[in-house]
Amino acid sequence: MTLQLPASNAADDLWAYVKNSAEACKAVAADPDQAFQLTARWNTVAVISDGSAVPGLGAAGPLAALPLVEEKCRALRRLAGLEARPLVLDVKSLDEAVRTVASLAQSFGAVNLEAFVETEAMELKRRLTDLGDLPVCQDALDALPVVCLAALTNALKAVRKKITDVRLVISGAETEGLALVDFLRLAGLGDVVVCDRSGAICRGRPGPTNWVMEELAQKTNPRQIRGSLAKALAGADALLLLAGGAPLQTKSPATLMAPNSIILSLVDQPDSFFFGATVSAAPNGPLNQLDACLALPGLLRGALDARALAFNAPMKMAAALALSKMVPEAELGAELIVPNAAKPGLVTAMAEAVSAAAAASGVSRLF
Amino acid sequence: MTLQLPASNAADDLWAYVKNSAEACKAVAADPDQAFQLTARWNTVAVISDGSAVPGLGAAGPLAALPLVEEKCRALRRLAGLEARPLVLDVKSLDEAVRTVASLAQSFGAVNLEAFVETEAMELKRRLTDLGDLPVCQDALDALPVVCLAALTNALKAVRKKITDVRLVISGAETEGLALVDFLRLAGLGDVVVCDRSGAICRGRPGPTNWVMEELAQKTNPRQIRGSLAKALAGADALLLLAGGAPLQTKSPATLMAPNSIILSLVDQPDSFFFGATVSAAPNGPLNQLDACLALPGLLRGALDARALAFNAPMKMAAALALSKMVPEAELGAELIVPNAAKPGLVTAMAEAVSAAAAASGVSRLF
Repeated sequence: MTLQLPASNAADDLWAYVKNSAEACKAVAADPDQAFQLTARWNTVAVISDGSAVPGLGAAGPLAALPLVEEKCRALRRLAGLEARPLVLDVKSLDEAVRTVASLAQSFGAVNLEAFVETEAMELKRRLTDLGDLPVCQDALDALPVVCLAALTNALKAVRKKITDVRLVISGAETEGLALVDFLRLAGLGDVVVCDRSGAICRGRPGPTNWVMEELAQKTNPRQIRGSLAKALAGADALLLLAGGAPLQTKSPATLMAPNSIILSLVDQPDSFFFGATVSAAPNGPLNQLDACLALPGLLRGALDARALAFNAPMKMAAALALSKMVPEAELGAELIVPNAAKPGLVTAMAEAVSAAAAASGVSRLF
Repeated sequence: MTLQLPASNAADDLWAYVKNSAEACKAVAADPDQAFQLTARWNTVAVISDGSAVPGLGAAGPLAALPLVEEKCRALRRLAGLEARPLVLDVKSLDEAVRTVASLAQSFGAVNLEAFVETEAMELKRRLTDLGDLPVCQDALDALPVVCLAALTNALKAVRKKITDVRLVISGAETEGLALVDFLRLAGLGDVVVCDRSGAICRGRPGPTNWVMEELAQKTNPRQIRGSLAKALAGADALLLLAGGAPLQTKSPATLMAPNSIILSLVDQPDSFFFGATVSAAPNGPLNQLDACLALPGLLRGALDARALAFNAPMKMAAALALSKMVPEAELGAELIVPNAAKPGLVTAMAEAVSAAAAASGVSRLF
């Protein structure tokens, strides 16, 4: 805790902060966009948490989330050169969270939400995005869908299937499942069946429900499959495992699926689980690691480089495409569908794609 | 704006922020004070502005204050080793400012308010301090009174007068004048007369008034002097010049004052102004520079070192004493009453005194 202070002989110059900043303040007052040239805003992301869903601890509160948020800032700093600032929020309502983050928005170029309850993060992101000038992203809602789409794209290339033709089963119907379904549908996927612990979600299913399930029932399951996960898996080309999924009755779901099946997991699963799949990937596997770290640094770097006003679907779509292209087609196969997050050039390539997509979709301050 | 990204081969380790922070999150959830050991909170100050009073620009708004706030953070980082974080607030009311800063409080160990309208800063500081666990300081309300008291203490030593015996005239009756008067009275000064453009402030003075003037009229001017600044200066031992003071009818006020007079200025004045004073000091003079930079780094460093719950008068009193002691008695004289802000050991000595005073006055989390 002790600190060696510099024996500076230039305190007067250092303290001349009013004089040193006078021209910049004047320029920004005349033209707000100058803040991106004259301050660190162009490179600054706030990593914000209310501590409502700290991994392993649950609603532990803002202070308990501070170590997590600081570590994430360190990671973003190292991986993408971001000026990442940890902030924890002690708020009593979502309205208050919206007001607080909105009132700070001009301090940053982007916001990353961390360790919020998923439904709250989704709503907070939606309402902050509605304000129209702050890109807000979150791992489960933004980075993981990008990683999933890139992995699915490359896995389908490896087994020579087209995304518009395949049948995908998602096991797990939490909030991030809905975000993922929306994103994959944009990419052309038509036949998705989402299963929770009670089996396939479909219209008119009896039993408890919520708005996420209602929305999934409307958007997915075009063949109106009813019943267990095993039933949904019959003839499926790909299985994507999320948290909260149905218990599997078999250790080799691939045996139920179509030939050349693909299994992607975002939750820890025993290795044996993937037995039989032609292509498989897991969050902590030795290969094809499916983790937000593959996408978030590039997404944020790209949004900041574009001086983006939002984080939109075209930016995420461009990120997924750039990520998938980081594995050359010749190297694609069961063993390699997504690159290692440390692959040189990965963050830069994704950032360029994201930034260009922001410009093309009209959410860049630069164009 | 381009950035060389590190060709790291350790992205997986870098991204293991959940795993890396899990133990710390758990420890802080169990004991909130652990945040001072396990996060950067112990060393973090937020420099916050709403841009309502940007020097030279006025109410230019939060974004125009960002360059200023960033420069100040840089200065605090360099002078006191602080992790200083710039934040600008877009708020519509003082209530909203209080709520916003309060909701972020657990992210920091202290807050420094910058470029707020003075009355607003005073009220914001008061209300945030009332919450009971966040030290809030501001240059005019905290750092400058410390510098003034240290300068006055040493100047009085040089002319061999006692603070309890002297008559002080303050020219300028803005909000910071009130903060200064309160602080100097705590240090033992009894006879203070504050003058504004209409002359000496006293009870029952006709003409426009406001709450600051009313409060000054109650607390100062024990001899009920009425009339011009010149009249107040008759026989005074010291003159302290603030912004908004009365126009001086003479270039050598010292001729009106008691023998061995002292003139301290916190506003730019032509050098000739000080003609005749035995001891004089000014904000930008070559000697005895009276600037917040003499006190703020040590005040903040001390508050953070003590893990303080507030910034109280005993802490500021200790800071003033420590600052005054940085000029050895043998060196004291008209030419030297306060040290240079870059004097080696200055920040450390003040921080130690402030930290000890926080402990002694019951606002340190460490005791």
